[in-house]
Amino acid sequence: MIYLDGNSLGPPSNGALSALKQTAEDEWAKGLVSSWNDADWISLPVSCGAKIAAIIGVDQDEVIVTDSVSVNLFKLAAALWTKNKGMIAVDRYEFPTDSYIADGLATLVNGKTVKISDPTELLESGVSVLIKSLVNFKTAKIADISAWQHHAEKVGAAIIWDLSHAAGVLDLRLKADGVKYAVGCGYKFLNGGPGAPGFVYVDADTASQLTQPLAGWMGHHDPFDFDQEYRPAKGVLRFACGTPPILSLAALDASLDIFEKVRLSDLEDKAKRLGDLFLRNSREMGLETISPLENRFRGAHVSLTHDHAYAIVQMMIENGVIGDFRSPNIMRFGFSPLFLSYEDVWRATDILKEVIASGKWRDPKYTQRRKVT
Amino acid sequence: MIYLDGNSLGPPSNGALSALKQTAEDEWAKGLVSSWNDADWISLPVSCGAKIAAIIGVDQDEVIVTDSVSVNLFKLAAALWTKNKGMIAVDRYEFPTDSYIADGLATLVNGKTVKISDPTELLESGVSVLIKSLVNFKTAKIADISAWQHHAEKVGAAIIWDLSHAAGVLDLRLKADGVKYAVGCGYKFLNGGPGAPGFVYVDADTASQLTQPLAGWMGHHDPFDFDQEYRPAKGVLRFACGTPPILSLAALDASLDIFEKVRLSDLEDKAKRLGDLFLRNSREMGLETISPLENRFRGAHVSLTHDHAYAIVQMMIENGVIGDFRSPNIMRFGFSPLFLSYEDVWRATDILKEVIASGKWRDPKYTQRRKVT
Repeated sequence: MIYLDGNSLGPPSNGALSALKQTAEDEWAKGLVSSWNDADWISLPVSCGAKIAAIIGVDQDEVIVTDSVSVNLFKLAAALWTKNKGMIAVDRYEFPTDSYIADGLATLVNGKTVKISDPTELLESGVSVLIKSLVNFKTAKIADISAWQHHAEKVGAAIIWDLSHAAGVLDLRLKADGVKYAVGCGYKFLNGGPGAPGFVYVDADTASQLTQPLAGWMGHHDPFDFDQEYRPAKGVLRFACGTPPILSLAALDASLDIFEKVRLSDLEDKAKRLGDLFLRNSREMGLETISPLENRFRGAHVSLTHDHAYAIVQMMIENGVIGDFRSPNIMRFGFSPLFLSYEDVWRATDILKEVIASGKWRDPKYTQRRKVT
Repeated sequence: MIYLDGNSLGPPSNGALSALKQTAEDEWAKGLVSSWNDADWISLPVSCGAKIAAIIGVDQDEVIVTDSVSVNLFKLAAALWTKNKGMIAVDRYEFPTDSYIADGLATLVNGKTVKISDPTELLESGVSVLIKSLVNFKTAKIADISAWQHHAEKVGAAIIWDLSHAAGVLDLRLKADGVKYAVGCGYKFLNGGPGAPGFVYVDADTASQLTQPLAGWMGHHDPFDFDQEYRPAKGVLRFACGTPPILSLAALDASLDIFEKVRLSDLEDKAKRLGDLFLRNSREMGLETISPLENRFRGAHVSLTHDHAYAIVQMMIENGVIGDFRSPNIMRFGFSPLFLSYEDVWRATDILKEVIASGKWRDPKYTQRRKVT
C-alpha cells in the first residue's frame, strides 16, 4: 500500500500504539481514578501542548490540547469578538466547518460574517476577527502570513490561523511571524489518531486578557476547589473546557515524540520534493492541478482535477494507492515525509497512469458513493 | 482494592479493552483512513447514541455522542436561549462547570443568569432555560423530575437535565417523564473510559426546530458535500460538531454493551441497597451524611462529612478503599452495582472505622493536597 492520505489521517507510530495500550490496560484498568495523579493524566493537555508549541514555533506554555478544531475556533473567535465587535470574516475558500462555526457564532451574538480572499479586503470591511487556514485544504496553497498579519494589524483585526494542514510538515515560526492566535488538529500530519483532540495557541501576553464562553472546569484557575464562580486559569489554559478524552490524548501525546527526533526544516523539504515529483509526473500525463506549482507556495498535499475524480480515487485505492476525493472533482494526495519514500511516490504516479488509461473506473463499483468520501 | 469511585471513573470491561485494541491496532494502524467506512467509524456517534438512548428511556434516534458534557450544555443552552431569550438558570447547588457554562453563554450574548433551588422559583423569575443535574454531584439527591417539568411547562421554560451522575444506575424513563433535553457523560457509571465523550438527547419533534451555534461539519446534512452553507442534519444529529475522538468513542461504545445484558431496574435496586448498607454502617459509627437517607431520593453515591475528610480519604485509598474528596469536607463513595458486592461495601465500612479510629490520618502525608483531589 502507498499511503498518500496522511493529510487526512496520519498512521500510528509504534510508540503511540504502545502508549495507548499502557494507558488503557495499566493506567485505566489498574490505576483507575488514581491515574489522574499517578499517571499525570491531568497534565496531558499541557504537556501535549508544549510538544506542539515546539512544532509551530511558539513558547511551550502557549499551547493547550483540548476539544476539536471546530470547538476551539468557536472559543477563540468568540473571545476575540467579545473584545472587538466587528465583522467575523472567513476566507472565501475556507474549509467549510470553519465557515459554519463563524456563521454559528454570528447568529448567536447577532453579529455578521463576511468572506474575503485577499489581505487588502481587511482594510475596508470592518473585520475584527478573521479565520483563515494557513494551508488551504483543497489547493494546498500557503497563505502569505506576513501580508495578512500586516493588513490585520493596520485595522486592529485578529487573525485565527487554522494550522490543520500545516502543523507537522511546515517549519513554522509563528511567534517570529507575529501570529498571536491559532488552532489545529492532531490527526493529520501530527499522526495523533482518528479524531485526535485539537489544539489552541494564544500568545501569552494576550491570553490573560481574553474571556472565552466555553468556560468549563478544566479551564478554571483551581478546578478542584469547585467554586461556584469561574476564575479563569492563567494564559492559554483558560481555553480548556470539559474533561479531556484521555485515551485519544495519550495516543496523540506519544505520536508527537517523533517530532523531537527530526528537524522540521528537513520534513518540510522532503514533503515538498515528494510533492514536486508527484506533480511533475502527473502533469506529464496531462493531468491538471489546482495546487501551486512552485513548492514554496504549496503545503504537503497536491490536488489534481478530473471529471471522474471520485471513481479514479476509488480504483486507485483498490490498486493500493490511498488518496482522497474532495467534491466536486478533486483527487487529493498527501506527502507525509515521515514514512513516504521517493520510490513510493514514483510508483503511485505509475499506478495513476495505468488506472486512468484502463478506463475501468467507469465500472459502477467505483462510482457508487460511500458514506465518507 | 474496593473501588467506590465508579461514579468518578468507571472501570473498563474486557470488551472495552479489546475493542480499543482492535480499533487502534487493526482499524487505525492497518485500515487507516478507510476505516471511516470499513469499520464504520463515521456511525459511532449515532450507534453509541442509540445504546445510551435505551439506558435513559428515549427513542434510539434521539441521542448522539459528541464532545464533552460542558460543550454539549453550551450547545443546547445556546440553541434554546436563541428561541426564547429569557434568563438562563442553574440550580444553586449545581456542579460548578454547568454554572460556568451558563455564565459564559450569558456573558457572550448579553444575557443574564440566575440561581434557583426550587421548582416554584421558575414561576416568577423569567427563566427560559434551566440547567439542572438529575442527581446532585455532592449530595446524590435525585431531583423531582415531574415537579420541575410541571413548573417549567407552565412558564414555557426548557430544562436541560444533566444526567452525569444518573445514567447507567437509575432506571430512567425520560420520554415518559416528559423530558425533552438532556446531556450526560460517558466516563462515570457508563464506564466509557477517562474523559469519554458526552452525549446529547433532544426530543425528535423539537430537535429539528433548534439551531445550535457550534455548527461543525459532522452536524451538517451532507458533510462530504463540503458546502459553504451550513444545512443542519435531521434531529439530534445537528448537535454533532467536529471530528469525534474515535479511540475514546470505541471504548465507550463497547462499554455500553454490558447494559444490553442487564435490567436497569435491577442495577438501580442493587446500587441503592449497597448505598443503604454503607450509610447504615457509617451512621452507626457516628458519621454524618448530606445524602438523603431514603433511597428513593438518592442516586448511587453517598457523601459523608468530616472536618478531616481529605486526609481520611487519602488514608482510605492507602488501605485499599478508593473514594473521593469533594471540597470542603466531603468524603464521597460511589456504589457501582455492576462490579461491587455487599461484602465489598461491608469491608469498606470496617476499614473506614479502623482508619478514623487510628487517628493516623493526621500524618502530613495524608494532608498534602495532590493535583486532582
